Amino acid sequence: MSGGWLAIVGLGPGAARMLTPEVTEAIGQASDVIGYIPYVARVSPRAGLTLHASDNRVEIDRADHALRLAAAGGRVVVVSSGDPGVFAMAAAVFEALEAGPDHWRDLDIRVLPGITAMLAASAAAGAPLGHDFCAINLSDNLKPWDVIERRLALAAAADFAIAFYNPRSRARPDGLDRAFAVLRETCDDERPVLFARAVTTPDQSLRIVPLPQARGEMADMRTMVIIGSSRTRLIDRAAGPLLYTPRSIS
Amino acid sequence: MSGGWLAIVGLGPGAARMLTPEVTEAIGQASDVIGYIPYVARVSPRAGLTLHASDNRVEIDRADHALRLAAAGGRVVVVSSGDPGVFAMAAAVFEALEAGPDHWRDLDIRVLPGITAMLAASAAAGAPLGHDFCAINLSDNLKPWDVIERRLALAAAADFAIAFYNPRSRARPDGLDRAFAVLRETCDDERPVLFARAVTTPDQSLRIVPLPQARGEMADMRTMVIIGSSRTRLIDRAAGPLLYTPRSIS
Repeated sequence: MSGGWLAIVGLGPGAARMLTPEVTEAIGQASDVIGYIPYVARVSPRAGLTLHASDNRVEIDRADHALRLAAAGGRVVVVSSGDPGVFAMAAAVFEALEAGPDHWRDLDIRVLPGITAMLAASAAAGAPLGHDFCAINLSDNLKPWDVIERRLALAAAADFAIAFYNPRSRARPDGLDRAFAVLRETCDDERPVLFARAVTTPDQSLRIVPLPQARGEMADMRTMVIIGSSRTRLIDRAAGPLLYTPRSIS
Repeated sequence: MSGGWLAIVGLGPGAARMLTPEVTEAIGQASDVIGYIPYVARVSPRAGLTLHASDNRVEIDRADHALRLAAAGGRVVVVSSGDPGVFAMAAAVFEALEAGPDHWRDLDIRVLPGITAMLAASAAAGAPLGHDFCAINLSDNLKPWDVIERRLALAAAADFAIAFYNPRSRARPDGLDRAFAVLRETCDDERPVLFARAVTTPDQSLRIVPLPQARGEMADMRTMVIIGSSRTRLIDRAAGPLLYTPRSIS
């Protein structure tokens, strides 16, 4: 059966005003939308569209399902929050594709980017990622904790601003506190830490504390954590502080 | 004069289909649009809108101008390509704000994110940023080269995928070759390097070569360069290879 395609799309951080037109168009043309339950819930039902919502931690099953539907002629959209290429479904689909039957390699597959969480959080607070930075997934479902600790130490030595995805994993509730402890070994006491929760939604809240006061319990599953570099600055304002990292290091 | 505001917005990598609705709306409400010449050229002229295009390397003057117009009651949009918070105008505006008169801190200022170049390049090639990664600005206008070399060595030691912004600066044409030389000291010979040029435009081209074959001349001012981590994989396809970094390191 011909005419099938697969689009792996990013829904952005939450607000419809951040959804790109090409993602809206792909969803409008889809026969099937596949993804994690809360992300599929952001897609409006309509005649001719089947919604396939599945639980977390079944990413490869979901990717297989999407590839099979597209190979059978479906117009399939896999949805991720934020950007699908950042700790999300695009890599899972390509893992499934590589392990799957050869004819899957002939499928029409596109990745449509979205506003990823760290950029939405950064914009809400100012511009803490305005200079060199890195993004680290704190979930250790898929990597051992010693790798995370080593990366944190090297990122601090490089003086990157650091964005934490999945800062609070249910399987390792103390991970974020351990990450802060690693950073405190080398970072100064003024280093600002941003907790940006539910960014762009009505529940949005921002909190900035110096690193010595940062606690894992300040984050939940909807929180993005950004640690400034040694150059990151706070501007006091009546409307709330602005956090930014200058373009220059001199 | 009241009612003024300043929005620092991201136009995305080039294609209108990647411009978020909130950015389109802000531009539609603006009295003034300010930015680097090729970015302002992406905004359609209309009655009631003044376009202020300026050359590169005058970011602080441009930021001052924007803040003065907003303080005088203008509805001012500062445009960046990609995302305004990533090596772009948001940090420049906050530098000017911090150095400027106190009343600027009472201005209504928003940062509206956009699809940044590395995410558009990653999506075009597959998902090379699917695991931990960093973003480094190779322009040494604003930082000394030894800082860049040190960050590159630490990023390679951390096994991040690495995205290079401004890989070819006119002031330092050999910078990218020097960066590849630093990476070759520790990275294996299979390490893939993506050169993604003019992504999302009609001129888009993608090229993937192993690190030993990567040359600075393969990039120009419109190119994004992404170096894979040790885990990054290539999937061969008739339609062109897919480059992706698995979610797991085991």
